[in-house]
Amino acid sequence: MKEFAGEFDPQPFHLDEAAAAESVFKGLAASGWHTAAATMRLLADGEMALSDGLIGLGGEISWPRPTRAGDVLHVETEILEIIPSRSKPRQGIAKMRNTTLNQNGEPVQVFTASVLVFRRQA
Amino acid sequence: MKEFAGEFDPQPFHLDEAAAAESVFKGLAASGWHTAAATMRLLADGEMALSDGLIGLGGEISWPRPTRAGDVLHVETEILEIIPSRSKPRQGIAKMRNTTLNQNGEPVQVFTASVLVFRRQA
Repeated sequence: MKEFAGEFDPQPFHLDEAAAAESVFKGLAASGWHTAAATMRLLADGEMALSDGLIGLGGEISWPRPTRAGDVLHVETEILEIIPSRSKPRQGIAKMRNTTLNQNGEPVQVFTASVLVFRRQA
Repeated sequence: MKEFAGEFDPQPFHLDEAAAAESVFKGLAASGWHTAAATMRLLADGEMALSDGLIGLGGEISWPRPTRAGDVLHVETEILEIIPSRSKPRQGIAKMRNTTLNQNGEPVQVFTASVLVFRRQA
């Protein structure tokens, strides 16, 4: 957590226990971008890994609570919708809600993503 | 780019030039989460760094094009709205649109964020 924050999000509540205790997080908190990156790794290694890759176009992200040191995360993915492209017959957009949960089943991140997807080759 | 992707987003188009050339990216592309993390670092080091920190609650993120090797990024932030808390007098939410641009002025990321902000101490 501190290594990631030191490189990408060097704010006191991500780096220093004492400063974090005084902050709105009331204790050391992972950068939300670290939670996002760890979630991506879980998705890339998991059953959602598609043959043409997981190519995110964007989406809505929220961090209902921070990831803490020692947390064990997993991701649950729900496919909300698949929208075939009108112009490109092999291609479409899948809307997926990826909820990242800690070991207590509490969501630390919800990312509702638009992902570029491809049909199987005929 | 490859180091970040190897840790967090190990997909061929983020790791291997030849595989990337065959992909929809038509060349090696940074993970969108790497662009997001680099953007956070630019914000934390920049004029937008607030005294109580930049505490993102969430927002809408999109990657109109990938970051490429050698790109030089900067971020432009527009404050769209500040919504004072009804229950907590020192606190509010700022809506900020953070546009990350490459050296050609092309956006590689747009992140419209809700950020927890605090009034100056009286």
